[in-house]
Amino acid sequence: MPLPVRPVRSAAPGRGMAEPAIPVEDDGGRAALGARIGAVRRLSESLAAPLSAEDQQVQTMDDVSPTKWHLAHVSWFFETFVLGPYAPGYEVFHPRYGYIFNSYYEGIGPRHERPRRGALTRPPLADVLRYRRHVDDALDRFVAETAADVLRPLVPLIVLGLNHEQQHQELLLTDIKHVLASQPLHPAYRDDLTARAGAAPDLAPQLAFVEFMGGEHVIGADGDGFCFDNETPAHAVLTDEFTLANRPVTNGEVVAFIEGGGYATATLWLADGWAWVERGGANMWGETAPMYWSRRDGAWREFTLGGFRPLDPAAPASHLSYYEADAIARFLEARLPTEAEWELACRLTHAPGAEPNLLAAGLLHPAVPSGGPSRGLYQMLGDVWEWTASAYAPYPGFRAAAGAVGEYNGKFMVSQQVLRGGSCATPPGHIRASYRNFFYPHQSWQFSGLRLAR
Amino acid sequence: MPLPVRPVRSAAPGRGMAEPAIPVEDDGGRAALGARIGAVRRLSESLAAPLSAEDQQVQTMDDVSPTKWHLAHVSWFFETFVLGPYAPGYEVFHPRYGYIFNSYYEGIGPRHERPRRGALTRPPLADVLRYRRHVDDALDRFVAETAADVLRPLVPLIVLGLNHEQQHQELLLTDIKHVLASQPLHPAYRDDLTARAGAAPDLAPQLAFVEFMGGEHVIGADGDGFCFDNETPAHAVLTDEFTLANRPVTNGEVVAFIEGGGYATATLWLADGWAWVERGGANMWGETAPMYWSRRDGAWREFTLGGFRPLDPAAPASHLSYYEADAIARFLEARLPTEAEWELACRLTHAPGAEPNLLAAGLLHPAVPSGGPSRGLYQMLGDVWEWTASAYAPYPGFRAAAGAVGEYNGKFMVSQQVLRGGSCATPPGHIRASYRNFFYPHQSWQFSGLRLAR
Amino acid sequence: MPLPVRPVRSAAPGRGMAEPAIPVEDDGGRAALGARIGAVRRLSESLAAPLSAEDQQVQTMDDVSPTKWHLAHVSWFFETFVLGPYAPGYEVFHPRYGYIFNSYYEGIGPRHERPRRGALTRPPLADVLRYRRHVDDALDRFVAETAADVLRPLVPLIVLGLNHEQQHQELLLTDIKHVLASQPLHPAYRDDLTARAGAAPDLAPQLAFVEFMGGEHVIGADGDGFCFDNETPAHAVLTDEFTLANRPVTNGEVVAFIEGGGYATATLWLADGWAWVERGGANMWGETAPMYWSRRDGAWREFTLGGFRPLDPAAPASHLSYYEADAIARFLEARLPTEAEWELACRLTHAPGAEPNLLAAGLLHPAVPSGGPSRGLYQMLGDVWEWTASAYAPYPGFRAAAGAVGEYNGKFMVSQQVLRGGSCATPPGHIRASYRNFFYPHQSWQFSGLRLAR
Amino acid sequence: MPLPVRPVRSAAPGRGMAEPAIPVEDDGGRAALGARIGAVRRLSESLAAPLSAEDQQVQTMDDVSPTKWHLAHVSWFFETFVLGPYAPGYEVFHPRYGYIFNSYYEGIGPRHERPRRGALTRPPLADVLRYRRHVDDALDRFVAETAADVLRPLVPLIVLGLNHEQQHQELLLTDIKHVLASQPLHPAYRDDLTARAGAAPDLAPQLAFVEFMGGEHVIGADGDGFCFDNETPAHAVLTDEFTLANRPVTNGEVVAFIEGGGYATATLWLADGWAWVERGGANMWGETAPMYWSRRDGAWREFTLGGFRPLDPAAPASHLSYYEADAIARFLEARLPTEAEWELACRLTHAPGAEPNLLAAGLLHPAVPSGGPSRGLYQMLGDVWEWTASAYAPYPGFRAAAGAVGEYNGKFMVSQQVLRGGSCATPPGHIRASYRNFFYPHQSWQFSGLRLAR
Repeated sequence: MPLPVRPVRSAAPGRGMAEPAIPVEDDGGRAALGARIGAVRRLSESLAAPLSAEDQQVQTMDDVSPTKWHLAHVSWFFETFVLGPYAPGYEVFHPRYGYIFNSYYEGIGPRHERPRRGALTRPPLADVLRYRRHVDDALDRFVAETAADVLRPLVPLIVLGLNHEQQHQELLLTDIKHVLASQPLHPAYRDDLTARAGAAPDLAPQLAFVEFMGGEHVIGADGDGFCFDNETPAHAVLTDEFTLANRPVTNGEVVAFIEGGGYATATLWLADGWAWVERGGANMWGETAPMYWSRRDGAWREFTLGGFRPLDPAAPASHLSYYEADAIARFLEARLPTEAEWELACRLTHAPGAEPNLLAAGLLHPAVPSGGPSRGLYQMLGDVWEWTASAYAPYPGFRAAAGAVGEYNGKFMVSQQVLRGGSCATPPGHIRASYRNFFYPHQSWQFSGLRLAR
Repeated sequence: MPLPVRPVRSAAPGRGMAEPAIPVEDDGGRAALGARIGAVRRLSESLAAPLSAEDQQVQTMDDVSPTKWHLAHVSWFFETFVLGPYAPGYEVFHPRYGYIFNSYYEGIGPRHERPRRGALTRPPLADVLRYRRHVDDALDRFVAETAADVLRPLVPLIVLGLNHEQQHQELLLTDIKHVLASQPLHPAYRDDLTARAGAAPDLAPQLAFVEFMGGEHVIGADGDGFCFDNETPAHAVLTDEFTLANRPVTNGEVVAFIEGGGYATATLWLADGWAWVERGGANMWGETAPMYWSRRDGAWREFTLGGFRPLDPAAPASHLSYYEADAIARFLEARLPTEAEWELACRLTHAPGAEPNLLAAGLLHPAVPSGGPSRGLYQMLGDVWEWTASAYAPYPGFRAAAGAVGEYNGKFMVSQQVLRGGSCATPPGHIRASYRNFFYPHQSWQFSGLRLAR
Repeated sequence: MPLPVRPVRSAAPGRGMAEPAIPVEDDGGRAALGARIGAVRRLSESLAAPLSAEDQQVQTMDDVSPTKWHLAHVSWFFETFVLGPYAPGYEVFHPRYGYIFNSYYEGIGPRHERPRRGALTRPPLADVLRYRRHVDDALDRFVAETAADVLRPLVPLIVLGLNHEQQHQELLLTDIKHVLASQPLHPAYRDDLTARAGAAPDLAPQLAFVEFMGGEHVIGADGDGFCFDNETPAHAVLTDEFTLANRPVTNGEVVAFIEGGGYATATLWLADGWAWVERGGANMWGETAPMYWSRRDGAWREFTLGGFRPLDPAAPASHLSYYEADAIARFLEARLPTEAEWELACRLTHAPGAEPNLLAAGLLHPAVPSGGPSRGLYQMLGDVWEWTASAYAPYPGFRAAAGAVGEYNGKFMVSQQVLRGGSCATPPGHIRASYRNFFYPHQSWQFSGLRLAR
Repeated sequence: MPLPVRPVRSAAPGRGMAEPAIPVEDDGGRAALGARIGAVRRLSESLAAPLSAEDQQVQTMDDVSPTKWHLAHVSWFFETFVLGPYAPGYEVFHPRYGYIFNSYYEGIGPRHERPRRGALTRPPLADVLRYRRHVDDALDRFVAETAADVLRPLVPLIVLGLNHEQQHQELLLTDIKHVLASQPLHPAYRDDLTARAGAAPDLAPQLAFVEFMGGEHVIGADGDGFCFDNETPAHAVLTDEFTLANRPVTNGEVVAFIEGGGYATATLWLADGWAWVERGGANMWGETAPMYWSRRDGAWREFTLGGFRPLDPAAPASHLSYYEADAIARFLEARLPTEAEWELACRLTHAPGAEPNLLAAGLLHPAVPSGGPSRGLYQMLGDVWEWTASAYAPYPGFRAAAGAVGEYNGKFMVSQQVLRGGSCATPPGHIRASYRNFFYPHQSWQFSGLRLAR
């Protein structure tokens, strides 16, 4: 029986970028803000901690940024957009860091070329960490000492900076995964990572399709807590009836795709995808397979942040390009959902008892769900980002934020596809039903998978 | 006052690819079909007639196909999909033509590489024309002699072949324009082409924005006559209120964009667009300007199928990439319409008396509208294809046709943008409100322009 | 017994580019010059005659020039260097041809980019032929009517122009061979070409090494007739004793190289050569083999100007890159000769009775020698250009000619290797012991082979 | 008056790769060998000492190798060619290092791709230093404990390993120079480096040309001490009379070249060189100038291992490509010497009292000579490698050493040019008159300059 999707019209569809309810008029509010800043900032450093200065230095493909660069860039964001303009007497840590650690903000000025970030041995990691201290101290003072009426309107900007840093935390992990996979020695990011214990290791939930009724519904940020500008305005959409798989596509299903000749059957692929296959695809080791898979002695293994492991057929497949996701869906006689379908389903139902496999779960790899059997949807949040059939485009009535931070999302709205739901590398509090991630169709270095729709 | 858009729910949203009402049971129907085949086929040859065998030979960039190749490929389509399978005793003209003139149908087998079409001196043009005769004769016989109950279900396929040939007629013209522009001698395609006389040559309709009410409407093919599969199924969409410019952006407005520093202002551009500008854009002569513009002695001139002409500031701007169209719209404090907005507006209103500037008008270049002043929308059809903000994606419930012809549209549904409305090179009867054209955002060798929305 | 190489010191080592003994003071001399001009010019057109305007249009790789372009460029040379400056009242045929048909003379001005020569549908072939008439007529008049004391010093320049045209005659053939091989239909250049009849078709002379004494010798142009500036000055060289194979390496020996794993054995190759192999080499059809070889049903066949033929194991191997030639020599436990060794051997001895297989022989393909057994060197001239171990460099005391014609040879003196001896496509009178041809080591679209030395 | 060049025929022209007179039969000989090993090995580490692990990690262009990689690779050489095969019980430090630190020895097996050396964060520098300890200790024991009759024939191989390490010492410095120049912060390699004090800082020796008589002479390794195989066999050459400049071309002369339009005058350049200029040349910062020059506020400055400095017009120009060197020589109405001319001149005469500016001088940059005025040739050794007109080719009778070490030199003998004389970064004892260095004509990241000949 189709589940009803509650039709809601948002009272205030077109909100700004960040409206968190943090009352900075009282000391508790300031303390909460300070604590949140501290928690996010410390997490970045703890993610970098297992890595040597050398590991944090390199860039193994254009899409990858060095760990060190991530650590500095997120600090540059606070320095450039918050401290520099608003903190009286703030001294810029180094006059050239603005050039070196600007990512893509044309409004801020020229910057170091992205593909050459890996060349930056200077500043060394030690200086980057001092830079972080400098910015942390200034942020602390700023939050503690600024008058409430000055601080209040800046809270959204600070929270944006925190969310920005969280995005880079996930990138830091996927980037370093590529770095480590590029080593002939294939080291693990951390030696204490293990595949999920406790859950039946080889049993994914049996594939089932959940039905949803069509009609007019609202998607987009619903006004509770922070969101990015690209999630706004909330707006009504029409959908037909649809069904969605109760779990992401598994590694075992991708093995079936391979063994069924999926990579050799042109008619399963989009034209661009087939051209990508014929150019060699993106497998790390030149094998015709998902990015981090490697076949040895007849068995598939997979490079993970815990090093090479035997492929778990029951775990969600990850590191798939859009081209692969689309072809696999077609092979499985299904399609990718639109982002509206995905969001509606996510808002309505989630498998009870399922603790999402996000960064905080500590697995750093997709896994079978930990909860018991359910009639609902498993793993909508966490495990793998799910490619949708929707191109990344502005919502009706979208307006980018004013000023340089307005370059954050809008200028990427062409040629990319939306992904939904977060992954095993998504930081706490950084995922929600309306969250829109986006990558080019050939990219697969994220924890990107798919869920079938029909 | 907003114009009401009639909300219509199509009774039969999901039709097949081609359902033209051509009754082949009687002789009149057969004659009509034969006449239509003859008209389309003859037009292709008349478009090629002003060109030498050498002109018809070359390929000046990967996107361009030689004229000769177009002439053969459209014949191959009939041979491969109609005559070969269904005409008893049909003899394939040459066993290798299937390899040489297949464009991209993976289901048919391997084929000559697209970027090497210009190398094909063999078969010579004379053989290609004989090939056309061979196919024409076989089609004639097939239409005249096949039993009605056999022929009837094949009519949609034949009509698809005709529409396919019409698409190549437009490509033939835009491709040869690139070839001619590549000649240091800058020859005209035809010497008898002139800019529109009669119309006030320097007076575009004054820019005005027409309002449309929001609500639930239906877009997509409405069941009258032929359509491509990508126009189906007709389906309901929601739109907010919107306004649409009464005419396309003019050359004069693009000059203002250039003089206002448009090509040097990063914040006007999508990130991919700005990277495209920094790599040099796509201007034919290395100038920072639309593709076929060239500045000489301080004045802009434009390469047309009639050779170089002074730029007409009142004519619609053409040969713009999506990146340019998007940046120009932003510069003019507007945006591009979605394809739903465009289609709704097109269905509702069109400037009275305006004879659309399509191929049949004989100008082969965008021009100011010929009709008098109007409160409606000028030039929705003809003149320039209008880039929309919509990525090319399947309509809800879309299904590609079965078999190899199903590779026609669906496999291109990623990374491209929809254009609407046809151009001065679109053949008679080959444009309608629901027609969806699509190109990559960097491409500008089509007659592609834009219309502002707000 | 080593053959003595006659040590000769040239009396006049440093001559100019062209000093042919054509006495233009009397009518006979003028007539001879006119006849020679006519013969060379007519030969170019007769070489183009089997080709359609379409065949003459295209450029299938950067190294290839269209036939039509060759026909025009050699005419441009006469127009630019002879008629324009010296023929009173000469009218340039077309003001833009100087831009279109300049190959690389920086001293003359800007020019059409080499890789885009194939785009030039205009001027059409008919105009190029009219251009040739125009230049021919002007040359005729110039030779007939110019005062002897004016004409005499210009004879070397005219003769240079003729030799230049002869070089392009050979290029015309090797270029069109690439064009024809690029056709999926694999047409022949002429249908009346046959492999050599009369000679025992499968019997190459048995491989033998002829010994030469070392010592001080003179190489370089010896003052009889025309030579290019790069053959001067004649100068003394020292050589050790050496031996040279009595014939070029045969196809059969290259088959042995392939079957012996030659293309898979890194240590046989120069480092650049191995990198070239790993990138895929230069085979026309993606096979690991010489450029025009293709294996079908277990047997090798070779594309020739007469179309595909079974590989003749006894004929000299051709279309080898320097990398291949060097590796094959190493596989055969030999080396390539230096250009000095080659020239000394060539001056001393040539198999008696051997009619060289040059263009005039009409085979247009390397073949077993026509003469009987011999103790000397077969095929030093004709059949295949022989790669030497010598980099293309100026001879001691070399001076390029003054003015733009000085760009003819000297500016290419880096990164290329010298080839000696002419080929089956070399026009009559255009080869001699001192002739130095040169190509980049990866290039193989010429009739290039090798002769072993030890 | 021409200086006579003593004609010498070497008694033993064709020696092996390394025959140093180190008597290992007695303890003194063993101690000397051990000391030499220790000195070379320690120098490598002291050169790396000013650099952080991050600095030693990166690869800023394909030609550059990371410092860390150099340190490991030279150790791998000893492990692979000496310790592994000959030291009983030697344990390979790590089984994958053979894959990671093989440079190009096909005979040894597959290896990590050169352009991806910068990705190798693992092993970390600390492990590489432990690797060096491991190899050092094993070498120490091997030299101390191996029986003399076993050790004696291996001495040449050990000495080859030391010379190999010295080559990498120079590369280490030129590579790290590129790394540091790539930093937006432009750090110095060492802060204590200064331009030469004491010498008149702005006074190069006045340009003069020294004459040499022609005749038959011998070049090549003369049998005293170590040489590489490519310096053998010594052999006779013929030269004409020639003159050689008494010093290298200076920065001031290159400024004159620039101001005289040298980079804009096609006729000064080889065709490949001009194409290189038109593609943008190799300047580090996109300026039309030698690689490390940058113009600021109207004055030239130069990036050195001591950071940016004002350009010294009297110092030898360095970091020139062959294309630049050739064009500059032509601009100065001279030419580059052949390697034979260079070697003959070097053997005959050297400015008295001139202490060569090699690595040991500690300047790490070319400088005016320290000695007083002289009638002889300044700076033949040290300061800058001097491009010669000679392509890198085997000497007559050259044979590469047997086995994998035979891949050392011979397989690069195509498309490169010979440089002579060492530079300010050449280690002690690692330069001699017969030494042949070689690079591709476009490369300029070495201390490469030129000396004029006529």
